[in-house]
Amino acid sequence: MQDVADQARTSKTTAHYVLTGQDQKLRIAEETRRRVLRAATELRYRPNLMAKGLRTQVTRSIAFISDTVATEAYAGNLVYGAIAAAAEHGYLLFVCETGGDPELEASLIGDLASRHVDAYVYASLFTREVQIPAELHFERTVLLNCLAADNSSPAVIPDERQAGRDAACALLDRGHRRAIWLVGEPGEQVLAGAQRTEGIRQALSDAGTELAGTVDCKWWPEPAYEQFGAFLDDGGDPSAVICLNDRVALGVYQALKARGRSIPTDVSVVSFDDSDLAAWLQPPLSSIALPHRQMAAEAIRLLMTDGALAEHPVHVAMPVRLRESIGPPRS
Amino acid sequence: MQDVADQARTSKTTAHYVLTGQDQKLRIAEETRRRVLRAATELRYRPNLMAKGLRTQVTRSIAFISDTVATEAYAGNLVYGAIAAAAEHGYLLFVCETGGDPELEASLIGDLASRHVDAYVYASLFTREVQIPAELHFERTVLLNCLAADNSSPAVIPDERQAGRDAACALLDRGHRRAIWLVGEPGEQVLAGAQRTEGIRQALSDAGTELAGTVDCKWWPEPAYEQFGAFLDDGGDPSAVICLNDRVALGVYQALKARGRSIPTDVSVVSFDDSDLAAWLQPPLSSIALPHRQMAAEAIRLLMTDGALAEHPVHVAMPVRLRESIGPPRS
Repeated sequence: MQDVADQARTSKTTAHYVLTGQDQKLRIAEETRRRVLRAATELRYRPNLMAKGLRTQVTRSIAFISDTVATEAYAGNLVYGAIAAAAEHGYLLFVCETGGDPELEASLIGDLASRHVDAYVYASLFTREVQIPAELHFERTVLLNCLAADNSSPAVIPDERQAGRDAACALLDRGHRRAIWLVGEPGEQVLAGAQRTEGIRQALSDAGTELAGTVDCKWWPEPAYEQFGAFLDDGGDPSAVICLNDRVALGVYQALKARGRSIPTDVSVVSFDDSDLAAWLQPPLSSIALPHRQMAAEAIRLLMTDGALAEHPVHVAMPVRLRESIGPPRS
Repeated sequence: MQDVADQARTSKTTAHYVLTGQDQKLRIAEETRRRVLRAATELRYRPNLMAKGLRTQVTRSIAFISDTVATEAYAGNLVYGAIAAAAEHGYLLFVCETGGDPELEASLIGDLASRHVDAYVYASLFTREVQIPAELHFERTVLLNCLAADNSSPAVIPDERQAGRDAACALLDRGHRRAIWLVGEPGEQVLAGAQRTEGIRQALSDAGTELAGTVDCKWWPEPAYEQFGAFLDDGGDPSAVICLNDRVALGVYQALKARGRSIPTDVSVVSFDDSDLAAWLQPPLSSIALPHRQMAAEAIRLLMTDGALAEHPVHVAMPVRLRESIGPPRS
């Protein structure tokens, strides 16, 4: 702490107040605050906040800070799971959204600190790597559905690679070996896209086969409908299709039906997310579920647990939901 | 206040603390607390909390209490709209869910009061009449997407009756006059179902026509697919279909397509909610939108406004989203 104070050209007390989120109380100048945070980051100063347990003077409130989780329909369970798990411990949740704006994040964290929030859940709508705000380095924080580039905070993410393997195995188990196509841009989401695809390739390779190819499209119904439709019109004749999410699968269903091809008699379909949509489609869609509620509960459990913390991110298993969209290959 | 204290056989100070949510601080016995609340309800004691403005000692926090809003995908904008509108005023939101359990509600409100929350948004997933918890009668409260049976609190609800008229007019404007069917149980949701249906009947009546009939089914894709499919198989030959929500419309689309009937060439379809689904269907579905974000913003505005309060619930207009699912009737 003394080193941080020296480098920031301020007192140890001031540095302490900044690094414990109490700078607002003392009216510390914004420039000083930034110098302290920068010095702490450069010197890799990091008090062991997780090990010391929740603050003695607890307000029993947790901040849930997200980019756009509450807005987006299908990730609402990240919020709900956190609210429910926190309530079991008698904690209430401040839910905040920043749209990913760093300035808004910093001012929000100042607001939350002045309300003596006990801990922070920093969540992302899409599974991805994030730069967590400097202010959070000195707070009890768990990352939900994201990873810090420097692995500096405990994190909870879905096991996307295993999900990819499971999707491929769902097809392999019914006898599919050839003409298995992937639909969606694998690079669109760095973590989910890349890892799902990697798991798919591994499982197919283990079974002595491989993807027939990829129909590239954004992860939305309309581009999937158009790109996959064009692929069919160009003579594409898949035996099975792995869609990178349920919205892509909706577009694939529409393109197949518009051309009189039947699911699963002509083409089997499997997907990821298990959003509401999956069970509503005709026939109901097999999908590997994003376990948002369980992930949120795990994040709260990490905040509440004093002892040992996972050094590596916690991977939560993605449940396989098999429905009528997968059948044996055409003989 | 003295009358309340007398009837509750306690002191005026105790009654004051109970009625301002500060009973936890003073360790007032649960039985006393209940006596005070009962007396206040019986005597219709109601301090003009809305008029006096937010408390002098503000914590700049608002509680958002809902049955299951955050869970349900399509109502996430109620939460998000409230978070965003509150943030504009420098307020943060505690978001809580009770599943509608009255005991949980009471204990939660106690928790929130002990955190000196400034105001409450009491929200419901479905538009409906509610019994608000006795504790909230004495807090600055706005109802969101629900109405108090006794109209005792300001409330913000969607203008469902006008939405019904607009759905019918969307068909009338394209020339539909006969074979217009309603799909969905009008009684399933007291407010939305009854008022949408009432508006539809009024608009058709004004145009000198009426509904050909109703295909009763729950407001979900699968029952709509089955019941509407059975209706078609029994010789049903609609010119246009009004679905009571988008999920019902999904089932109607599936049933029509499975029988080779084209939308809108053979049958026009219009619906309510304008969930994500509406724009994703092929052809994109015309739908009268639930303006959840605007409703939430209006609720926060009411909390922030000192002056005059609407005596009657504030009805927020439901925007008409016309897409390709409506065409002229078959000639």
